[in-house]
Amino acid sequence: MAKPKKQPRPKAETPKGFRDYFGAEVTERGDMLAKIAAVYHRYGFEALESSAVETVEALGKFLPDVDRPNEGVFAWQEADDDGRGDWLALRYDLTAPLARVYAQHRNDLPTPYRRFAMGPVWRNEKPGPGRFRQFYQCDADTVGAPSVAADAEICAMLADTLEEVGIPRGDYLIRVNNRKVLNGVLEAMGLEDDTQKDAVLRTIDKFDKVGEAGVRELLGAGRKDQSGAFIDGVGLGKTQIEPVMGFLNSFAVVQDKLAQEASRAFQEGDEARGRKLESARHCVAPEFKNHPEIAANAEAARIWNTRVLDHLRTIIGDSGVGFAGVEELTEIADLLAAQGYAADRIRIDPSVVRGLGYYTGPVFEAELTFEITDEKGRPRQFGSVAGGGRYDDLVKRFTGQAVPATGVSIGVDRLLAALRATGRVGGQAEGPVVVTVMDRARMADYQAMVARLRQAGIRAEVYLGNPKNFGNQLKYADRRGSPAAVIAGSDEFERGVVQIKDLVLGAQIAETATLDEWKERPSQFECTLDDMVERVRAIVDGEA
Amino acid sequence: MAKPKKQPRPKAETPKGFRDYFGAEVTERGDMLAKIAAVYHRYGFEALESSAVETVEALGKFLPDVDRPNEGVFAWQEADDDGRGDWLALRYDLTAPLARVYAQHRNDLPTPYRRFAMGPVWRNEKPGPGRFRQFYQCDADTVGAPSVAADAEICAMLADTLEEVGIPRGDYLIRVNNRKVLNGVLEAMGLEDDTQKDAVLRTIDKFDKVGEAGVRELLGAGRKDQSGAFIDGVGLGKTQIEPVMGFLNSFAVVQDKLAQEASRAFQEGDEARGRKLESARHCVAPEFKNHPEIAANAEAARIWNTRVLDHLRTIIGDSGVGFAGVEELTEIADLLAAQGYAADRIRIDPSVVRGLGYYTGPVFEAELTFEITDEKGRPRQFGSVAGGGRYDDLVKRFTGQAVPATGVSIGVDRLLAALRATGRVGGQAEGPVVVTVMDRARMADYQAMVARLRQAGIRAEVYLGNPKNFGNQLKYADRRGSPAAVIAGSDEFERGVVQIKDLVLGAQIAETATLDEWKERPSQFECTLDDMVERVRAIVDGEA
Repeated sequence: MAKPKKQPRPKAETPKGFRDYFGAEVTERGDMLAKIAAVYHRYGFEALESSAVETVEALGKFLPDVDRPNEGVFAWQEADDDGRGDWLALRYDLTAPLARVYAQHRNDLPTPYRRFAMGPVWRNEKPGPGRFRQFYQCDADTVGAPSVAADAEICAMLADTLEEVGIPRGDYLIRVNNRKVLNGVLEAMGLEDDTQKDAVLRTIDKFDKVGEAGVRELLGAGRKDQSGAFIDGVGLGKTQIEPVMGFLNSFAVVQDKLAQEASRAFQEGDEARGRKLESARHCVAPEFKNHPEIAANAEAARIWNTRVLDHLRTIIGDSGVGFAGVEELTEIADLLAAQGYAADRIRIDPSVVRGLGYYTGPVFEAELTFEITDEKGRPRQFGSVAGGGRYDDLVKRFTGQAVPATGVSIGVDRLLAALRATGRVGGQAEGPVVVTVMDRARMADYQAMVARLRQAGIRAEVYLGNPKNFGNQLKYADRRGSPAAVIAGSDEFERGVVQIKDLVLGAQIAETATLDEWKERPSQFECTLDDMVERVRAIVDGEA
Repeated sequence: MAKPKKQPRPKAETPKGFRDYFGAEVTERGDMLAKIAAVYHRYGFEALESSAVETVEALGKFLPDVDRPNEGVFAWQEADDDGRGDWLALRYDLTAPLARVYAQHRNDLPTPYRRFAMGPVWRNEKPGPGRFRQFYQCDADTVGAPSVAADAEICAMLADTLEEVGIPRGDYLIRVNNRKVLNGVLEAMGLEDDTQKDAVLRTIDKFDKVGEAGVRELLGAGRKDQSGAFIDGVGLGKTQIEPVMGFLNSFAVVQDKLAQEASRAFQEGDEARGRKLESARHCVAPEFKNHPEIAANAEAARIWNTRVLDHLRTIIGDSGVGFAGVEELTEIADLLAAQGYAADRIRIDPSVVRGLGYYTGPVFEAELTFEITDEKGRPRQFGSVAGGGRYDDLVKRFTGQAVPATGVSIGVDRLLAALRATGRVGGQAEGPVVVTVMDRARMADYQAMVARLRQAGIRAEVYLGNPKNFGNQLKYADRRGSPAAVIAGSDEFERGVVQIKDLVLGAQIAETATLDEWKERPSQFECTLDDMVERVRAIVDGEA
C-alpha cells in the first residue's frame, strides 16, 4: 500500500498586517475604553455594537459589479443556492454602519440619537510598520440634531474624556474650525468652479505637511517636491491666494494684532487695557499653557475668541455661507464659555484643516501638546489623537432624506501610546503571587493556600509546570513578574509555617546592594501559615 | 445628454443572521465580561486578544484546495500580484487561534501559559431563530500543564466566576466526568474496534436528547425516531450495553446504594452512621440544594465522592486507562475539597456526556439549576452555561509536538439571558436627566445647567431636537427613560429658579393614583438653580 502523502505542517503565523495583543496590552486598552464609555454615558450617549459584517451594498463604498469588490475592504460573496449570493464585507469604520443602523432602526430610536461605538475595524490595505489591517476605533455621534449645540457638546465631551483617561488640563487642546467659513472665503474670492474649489480644498489639506510656503506654491503655479518632481498648482493669482492664506494664518494674524494694540495701549498710558490685550494674546500661547491665571482666564479667552471671529468676518467679505459659518463658530464659542471651557482647552482655530474637505460644517481636532522623546531621543510633539465634525447627509443613500449628524473619532492606539509614553498607563504589570510546589503529593495544600490568597483579593497561582527543578519555578515567577513566591516543603507543613520570597525587594537588592547589604537584608522570611495572607499583602501593596 | 441611470437605493439591513446590539444590551454584556475577566485575572490568567482574521491554513478546518473553502467559515482569498494569495477566514472559535498563538509565540510565553480571551466569533451557518452567525465566546485555558491540578483549578475558577456575575451558590452546579473512565469501560467490554468505539461515543453524546431508553436502543439494535424512521444501532449485545449504562447512571446507582445502606444502618440501630449516609445521599439531591447544612456538608460530600469513585472502579474492570481516569477524578475531588468546593458546587458526575467524544481527559459542564418560566409560561430548567475539558494535542498540527491543554468556554449569551431572566441584570435602564429647551436663545444657560449635573456625576443631556413643540420634548424624555426633566423659561431665569419634573413619580401616579391624589402629589416642583443638583440627585437615587 502506498504511504499516504504527508501534509506539510501549517505555518503558525497571523496573516500579514494582523497582530495579537497580550496581557496588559489588552487590559490597558479595555480600561481606557471603559473610562471613555463612562464619560460618553454621562453625556447621555447610548452604546451601539453593530455587526462586524455588512453587505457591501450597505457599506456603500464598493459595489459587487466592480471588478475587484475587495478593494480596500475584506469582502466575499455569500454562497446561496445559485452560488450567487450577496457580497459581504468587514466594516472599515464605525460611521458607515451607523448610517445603516440609523436608517434601519430610525423609527425605534430617539431623535436626536446620541450613540457611541467602540470596536475593531478592518482595512484591506498594504500593511506597513505600525500600520495594521485590524485596529480599534472609538466614535461618538449625534444624529438628527441640526444645531451646533450638538457640535459644542461633543467638543466639551472630548475635553472631559481626555482628562478622564489621564491627560491633565494644559496637555491637550481641542481646536475648532468650520468648513463653511472656508467656503465663504472661496466665495469671496469669486471661485465658483467646483473643480477648482475641490483642488483648493485638497491643497489646504496638505498644510500640515508642506507648510505655508508649500501651500502658497501649490495654490499658485505649482512646486517641486522633495524628489525633484514638479507638482502642478491650482493656478490661482496672488490676490486670490491671499484670502486663503489669511484664513489659514488667522491665529498668527490675530496674535500680531493684539500685540500691536497692547503696545499702543501701554504707550498711551492705558495699562489696564494693555494688560487685558496681552492676556488675550498669551492665553493661547503654548509657553503659558500651564499658567492657570493666563491660560484659564475667562475674560482673556473671550477677547481672544472675539478677535478671531472678527478677523474671520473681514476675510469672508459678503459671502452668505461664510457669514453663517462665523455665526456657528461664535455660537460654539459662547456655549463652551458658558460651561467653563476656556481657550486653554477648546479654542476657535482656523488653521485646523484636517477633514475640511470631508465635513460640511464645524470641524474639530484634539491634539496633545506635550513633548515626548522619540526612538532617536529627539523631542517631538505628540500631535492629534481625535478628530471629527459635522456631516449632514448621513442616511440619504438609504432613505433619500438628509439627516444631520456630527461626531468624533478617537484614535485609540495613538491615545493609548500617549498615555504609555508619559507613564500614565502601564509600567510594572501586576504579576500573580506564585505558590511553588516542593512536594507534588501536597498539591491540595498548595491549592488551599492559593485559594486563601485569592479570597483576600490577591492575584495568585500555583506552579503547574513540572516541579522537579525548583530553580525553574523561581525563573517562572520571575517571568510572570511575580511580587512574591510562597515556598513550603514537608518541614514547613509540619511546623505550620511558609517561606515567603519578596521578589520585588530581591530584584532591588540584586541591582544595587553590596554583598554585605545583601546578607543583612534577607528578601526571604518565614511566617506562620495564618500570617501568610497579610505578609504577602504587605509585599504586593509595597509596604513590606 | 442622457440622464445618468439612477442607482437603486441600498437596503438598510444587516446581512442575514447578523444583528445589532443597543444600549443596555451592550453595556450589560460588557459589565458581565469585566467581572469574569477580574476573576480570571485573580487566578493568574493573562488576557489575549488574537486577530479576528486567520489564514485558513492556521485555522486548520479548511484547506484552500477544497472546492468551497468557505464551508462553515467566512473565508476569502487575498489578492496578491498573481491574484492567488492566501485564503483568509474569520475565526470560528477562540481555541483554534490559541493553538496558532501558542505555536507562534511559545518561546516568549511562560510555561504553563494561562490565558483568557473574550470576543466575537463567526460561523457561516444557516441562521435560525435566536441563532446568529456572529456571537461572543469567553474562554480560559491552561496550556502546557499535564497535571489535573490545572483542570481542578479551572473548575474552581468557574464556580467563583458564576458567583461573581450574580448566580448564588445553590443555583449552579459544576459536574465533572472523565473520558478516560469511559475509555476504560469500553476496554472492559472488550470493545477494540475504533469504528465501534466512535459509534458508542457518538451515541452517548445523545443521552441528553434521547434519554436512557433511547441510548439503550441505539447501542443495541436501533430505534425508531419521532418521524418513524428507523435509526440503525451500534449492535452491541445486552451484556455489553450494561457497563455503559452503569457508567451513565452512576449517579442514581450510588444514590440507591446509599439509601439501602442507610436504611440497614437505621435498622441495626446505628443512627449516627445512618444519618451520615443519608446526608451523603442528600448532599447532591436537588431538593436540598438550598439547605446549607446538607448541601455544603464537607463530610457528606467526601463520602459521596468516595462512593461514586468506588462505583466507577467496579465498572472499569482491570482497564489501565480506566484506572488512570478514576485516579484523575479522585485527585480532582481531593484538590477541590481542600479548597472548600463541596458537592453542592462541584461534583464528580459520570452522566456528563457533552464533549466526551472531543476531549481526551477530564470534562466539565456548568449548569444552572434554578427554574425559569419560558415564553409559554411553563417552568423549565435553565441548563448548561459553560463547558470544557482537557485536549492534549493543542499545537501538534503546527509543531509536531503534543502540548497538553485544558480549558473552559462560557456561553456568554446564555449566561446573560439567565441573569436577565432572574432579574439579576437589567430591568430599568438608567436614562439621562433631560434639560428641556424653552428658549432657544438660552442654549448656553441650558448647557451650563447640564454641565453642572454631569460634574456632580449625574447622567444628563440637553434636548437637541427642534424645541418648538414642548410636548415632543417630554415625549423624548419618556422615550429615553429619563428619571427627571428640568424646565426653565425666561420667568425662571429671571427668578433664578428651575422647574423639576419627577418622571419616576409621575409615572407611578399616572398608573395608580385617583384624581384627588394626583392633585395632592404634584410630580413637578420649583427649586432654586443652586439647589437643582441636589433635588435632581434625590430623584435619581430614588429618595425624592
